[in-house]
Amino acid sequence: MMKRNLLILLVLFATPAFAQQRARELGIKIGVLPTGSLNAITDVGGVKVGQVTLREGADVRTGVTAIMPHDGNLFQQKVPAAIYIGNGFGKLTGYSQVEELGTIETPILLTNTLSVPTVADAIIDWTLGQQGNENVRSLNPVVGETNDGFLNDIRGRHVRKEHVLNALAQAQNGPVAEGNVGAGTGTVCFNFKGGIGTASRKLPANLGGYTVGVLVQTNFGGVLKVNGVPVGEELGKFAFKESLDKTSDGSCMMVVATDAPLDARNLKRLAKRAIMGLAQTGGIASNGSGDYVIAFSTANRMLHEMPERTFGATYLHNDAISPLFLAVIESTEEAIINSLVMAQTSEGTQGHKVEELPKEQLLEIMKKYGRLK
Amino acid sequence: MMKRNLLILLVLFATPAFAQQRARELGIKIGVLPTGSLNAITDVGGVKVGQVTLREGADVRTGVTAIMPHDGNLFQQKVPAAIYIGNGFGKLTGYSQVEELGTIETPILLTNTLSVPTVADAIIDWTLGQQGNENVRSLNPVVGETNDGFLNDIRGRHVRKEHVLNALAQAQNGPVAEGNVGAGTGTVCFNFKGGIGTASRKLPANLGGYTVGVLVQTNFGGVLKVNGVPVGEELGKFAFKESLDKTSDGSCMMVVATDAPLDARNLKRLAKRAIMGLAQTGGIASNGSGDYVIAFSTANRMLHEMPERTFGATYLHNDAISPLFLAVIESTEEAIINSLVMAQTSEGTQGHKVEELPKEQLLEIMKKYGRLK
Amino acid sequence: MMKRNLLILLVLFATPAFAQQRARELGIKIGVLPTGSLNAITDVGGVKVGQVTLREGADVRTGVTAIMPHDGNLFQQKVPAAIYIGNGFGKLTGYSQVEELGTIETPILLTNTLSVPTVADAIIDWTLGQQGNENVRSLNPVVGETNDGFLNDIRGRHVRKEHVLNALAQAQNGPVAEGNVGAGTGTVCFNFKGGIGTASRKLPANLGGYTVGVLVQTNFGGVLKVNGVPVGEELGKFAFKESLDKTSDGSCMMVVATDAPLDARNLKRLAKRAIMGLAQTGGIASNGSGDYVIAFSTANRMLHEMPERTFGATYLHNDAISPLFLAVIESTEEAIINSLVMAQTSEGTQGHKVEELPKEQLLEIMKKYGRLK
Amino acid sequence: MMKRNLLILLVLFATPAFAQQRARELGIKIGVLPTGSLNAITDVGGVKVGQVTLREGADVRTGVTAIMPHDGNLFQQKVPAAIYIGNGFGKLTGYSQVEELGTIETPILLTNTLSVPTVADAIIDWTLGQQGNENVRSLNPVVGETNDGFLNDIRGRHVRKEHVLNALAQAQNGPVAEGNVGAGTGTVCFNFKGGIGTASRKLPANLGGYTVGVLVQTNFGGVLKVNGVPVGEELGKFAFKESLDKTSDGSCMMVVATDAPLDARNLKRLAKRAIMGLAQTGGIASNGSGDYVIAFSTANRMLHEMPERTFGATYLHNDAISPLFLAVIESTEEAIINSLVMAQTSEGTQGHKVEELPKEQLLEIMKKYGRLK
Repeated sequence: MMKRNLLILLVLFATPAFAQQRARELGIKIGVLPTGSLNAITDVGGVKVGQVTLREGADVRTGVTAIMPHDGNLFQQKVPAAIYIGNGFGKLTGYSQVEELGTIETPILLTNTLSVPTVADAIIDWTLGQQGNENVRSLNPVVGETNDGFLNDIRGRHVRKEHVLNALAQAQNGPVAEGNVGAGTGTVCFNFKGGIGTASRKLPANLGGYTVGVLVQTNFGGVLKVNGVPVGEELGKFAFKESLDKTSDGSCMMVVATDAPLDARNLKRLAKRAIMGLAQTGGIASNGSGDYVIAFSTANRMLHEMPERTFGATYLHNDAISPLFLAVIESTEEAIINSLVMAQTSEGTQGHKVEELPKEQLLEIMKKYGRLK
Repeated sequence: MMKRNLLILLVLFATPAFAQQRARELGIKIGVLPTGSLNAITDVGGVKVGQVTLREGADVRTGVTAIMPHDGNLFQQKVPAAIYIGNGFGKLTGYSQVEELGTIETPILLTNTLSVPTVADAIIDWTLGQQGNENVRSLNPVVGETNDGFLNDIRGRHVRKEHVLNALAQAQNGPVAEGNVGAGTGTVCFNFKGGIGTASRKLPANLGGYTVGVLVQTNFGGVLKVNGVPVGEELGKFAFKESLDKTSDGSCMMVVATDAPLDARNLKRLAKRAIMGLAQTGGIASNGSGDYVIAFSTANRMLHEMPERTFGATYLHNDAISPLFLAVIESTEEAIINSLVMAQTSEGTQGHKVEELPKEQLLEIMKKYGRLK
Repeated sequence: MMKRNLLILLVLFATPAFAQQRARELGIKIGVLPTGSLNAITDVGGVKVGQVTLREGADVRTGVTAIMPHDGNLFQQKVPAAIYIGNGFGKLTGYSQVEELGTIETPILLTNTLSVPTVADAIIDWTLGQQGNENVRSLNPVVGETNDGFLNDIRGRHVRKEHVLNALAQAQNGPVAEGNVGAGTGTVCFNFKGGIGTASRKLPANLGGYTVGVLVQTNFGGVLKVNGVPVGEELGKFAFKESLDKTSDGSCMMVVATDAPLDARNLKRLAKRAIMGLAQTGGIASNGSGDYVIAFSTANRMLHEMPERTFGATYLHNDAISPLFLAVIESTEEAIINSLVMAQTSEGTQGHKVEELPKEQLLEIMKKYGRLK
Repeated sequence: MMKRNLLILLVLFATPAFAQQRARELGIKIGVLPTGSLNAITDVGGVKVGQVTLREGADVRTGVTAIMPHDGNLFQQKVPAAIYIGNGFGKLTGYSQVEELGTIETPILLTNTLSVPTVADAIIDWTLGQQGNENVRSLNPVVGETNDGFLNDIRGRHVRKEHVLNALAQAQNGPVAEGNVGAGTGTVCFNFKGGIGTASRKLPANLGGYTVGVLVQTNFGGVLKVNGVPVGEELGKFAFKESLDKTSDGSCMMVVATDAPLDARNLKRLAKRAIMGLAQTGGIASNGSGDYVIAFSTANRMLHEMPERTFGATYLHNDAISPLFLAVIESTEEAIINSLVMAQTSEGTQGHKVEELPKEQLLEIMKKYGRLK
């Protein structure tokens, strides 16, 4: 029990992720649209993020990342949502009900592959225990994952319910820790250390003024490009360079939040564009990759208890959605790059070690290709 | 601990489900195709079923039903599979990987809504522990559910891992217990006691000679028809008779097994037909219903370790598949009716009581409509 | 030209379809919900149907059926819509845009398989020619079909543009001709003469008071049941009775209209239920069947020219939709049976002849099974 | 008639598209995988392309592009195929049957939006007329389109059946004309002249040695990147620069051919990756874009007449597919860039003019960003 408390203290006070620099701080400016003030998913009003990082001994390198669409009772006040599956080699739970009903009724949790059930069970605990949910007997937890089994003793399933409850309890607005934190603690991306990343875009008023925020858990591969620059090739590290390696496998979880008033159909279209942002980083959604995008809108709430047979709502016209597509693409690309540049070299189970993307070399390459501001 | 052992004894030796009579024994003969020898999903060679029934005190009325496509190492020798979602108000886990890769790599488990994570976690335990799986770090458990919260204290989540392991351990070929057993212990169907049901069809040789078996967990509603006879109307019990009642909500899990050599695409087509069998019973796949069909074929095995880049296989031609569609429709209809006639009146949590379909009246009605052999 | 005028006269004045009796007139009462006043798709306010029947010489047995969601400019005032594909062995055009945008912008046309392009082209003519559409340069015609090639010289593609324009021009509210008319002129259903059929349901006020109307073009097979009665078996005519016959192939086009305020997501759910109505008639959606459901709502119109970035609308709550599901199921079943009982024995190309469902025997069988009111 | 012959001569002898230089000739080398010998879709053995360009007077700027999977009887010997819809604002016909049956039974035709029916009808003519197809009464033409209505008098529907038959007749192996040809004659891409483009990749032997070829019809927009270089920004031309412009609308048709032995499920996965190639060029799949990918494999043929109930075939293991994903992504990106650099400034209807991508500036920009070999 001692150790566990220690762990949580570690998480709350010692998360080192802010030490690194984000892409823009490094001089890498992705896209043409302006960012939100934090350049984070939390730029979407009301969205909170909570993370618990598990780093114990040589073997445990994993964690939990929670995204809360709003801080009311999510079951009673659901939000419109959609999930797009870029490549379905993954264990995300909760897909079909979101697809059918067009809403999400829990926080969105990310963790490692084999801990999905534990985390889903914890969300059930958490929701059943909320005031007003005394009669809830059905619940659709949405839990995504990537496989951190190279650095983490994933078979040990070290994520426990209290970690999830803790991540939910500490969820907050404001800056989001990136890199080796939460569900990104043990992930690997383009053969370098991956992790959690985030970014956002705020559309100009004449395009609607809406905000889009993206948070990613990166654990995939391909042929790395940073803002279009062939960094993977320059570093001599990319998929299939020599043989049918599995370095492009892994997964990428992407969560897209927006305050634009979208229904589930248009949220699914938004979600599809996140894969296009992933593509810009050189990801290929390989066979062994679970690439899922969960998109939600904070603009309308769908009440669990139906006060009347019908409800009135305001929605964005199809024709006005394209700038949001661009915002999602840019945010996703930048969130992925942030996850890479914010991650740090890490050692883990079985003596495995994953280097971070070498910043000095990266900046040299970016400069060589005229891409450093 | 004492109580638990008692429970399992109860399951193994005292399951009362065989006391009731199946539809055909009652003189109700559904469809035009011949049944398999057991008229059960276990007519498909190698398929095993294991069930654990939890009936404790006044509150616990739930359980676990496991279907094993074969008794080898399912992770190492996956089977082609597909999942069709009739109505997605449900919490089935494992959908997207089956859809993407076209295979299933675990047994299929059924339970109650809030116990899906527990059961999924138990399958992970079970699979990681199998010989040959020492290096498995990714696994896609397939767990379906219906909501037995009317009779069962579902919020208590009484299913524990050992129940799942027990269901898997006792899985066997041969006759399948129906009615108030396993995952069907606490379910309600058409306002009567539902449960587990099964049926099968064996195509004549000139249609291919293949076997189709279906197992269902029935917990849904609508306007009950038994072999086309308006039993619900005759009994004065059907959905929306007076008002916007929720009696048609609930769910139906359907598992379809076949020895016909089908790939995932054609298995999905097979799965879609199970909903057509459900329709014949008067089910409407209401808003609150989670109607899922999981179909697999035992004819080909897909090896986890790829011995070569390509594999050779034999598949059924599209043009030869239609009789299998009819077999699925008939089997599903009969399996649902079996679940009803095999179930027994049951009392449960909060003093709730659900009557079984009254057999005497049923038979009178069937006779009145000329449908009793 | 003479012949063509004659033809149209024939259509306008001599359509014999009303001579037969509809299911309810025969004493066959399907379902528990009340019908609309006409028991037709045109019970949904504003919906019009126009049909042109082509019956020329020995070879031509085909036609066109047009359904108009409203009689304004459909391109400028689109209606929410969705298409569900039960079995996709068919040539319906227009699917993907309806799926993506959630609206339909033309009338819905039904015809024979090889005439889909001709009919689509005619809708383009018609729409481009409408006042207000002078600048329209993109259009998504929705045209469905079934294969009437057993009675009709389908390779001759006898449907011409003027037939389509004529069907649109004569579209009207009020009773709808059934049986051997329009796109149902040459179709075959359950080995008997099929055709066009329609039915509707009007929900009681306490279920919302909404109307659902269905129109079908029946050209499929299986094991015919009429209101649950095994008519196909009694008549000794059903699929696979002797061998792998193709009599269950063919297709069924189903059009579902409602005045309930549904968006595309819920319209798709409605559409899925039409297949459950088809299932009740003994259809199996065989391999060679193209079973498509097109559903639209007249309650909201989506303007082509976006006056503002957002729009307000009223929609039905998910929880209130289930009675509409039942209404669709019942209407589809009854529409299919209407198509059968209203169709008449027909001879066509290559000397082929298809008998109508023998009414006298039908009524005897219905009586035997206690199903004649 | 004179004029028409002249036109065809023009097509056969005077197509100017080869005058421009392809991306690689300009020194732009995309991706890490080697190209096929022609760097064209025709590198996939047996695949043929035929194009008819319509350029008449001031108003007609359109055409037809035909891709033939093999030159046998395609209806009798279908090829495995799949269609992925990136964004469904388009009028592609033939989707649902390919999805259901997993095969394509006609050539794939590309044209303008309003000419889809004409082209579909021509394919029907062509197929019905082939030897061995005397009894064909059902056919699923696959026709895609983009909207060339800015340069072309699209409402005039100038494509006629003979143009389609001509494109099919002249289809050939070998180099493929790019730029303002065939269905790309009047298209606009990233505000510059778009058109037809193609590229291919040949996997090294240790990755399977398979060939992937892509052909695109480009008519879309976004923020142009050429091999990662922000060309659109440098030229000051990109979507939403000032306002909610529609310059990102339009569409992109992508056809993917491979000789890898893939079934429909894996072909769909391949198709999905083409959108990731499009993403690399800065395309955003905007609301008004119809982005479709049609993928087929030449490795297996599915016979229309079923000689036996089952068939044997060899397929690629899921685990070996990832290099093909990368091949599709790279080929699509390069094909799109080829379509741009091979297109020429063009004037058309209503005095509209679209400049080609300025080569001198392009090369300067590529040089500035260190991307010119």
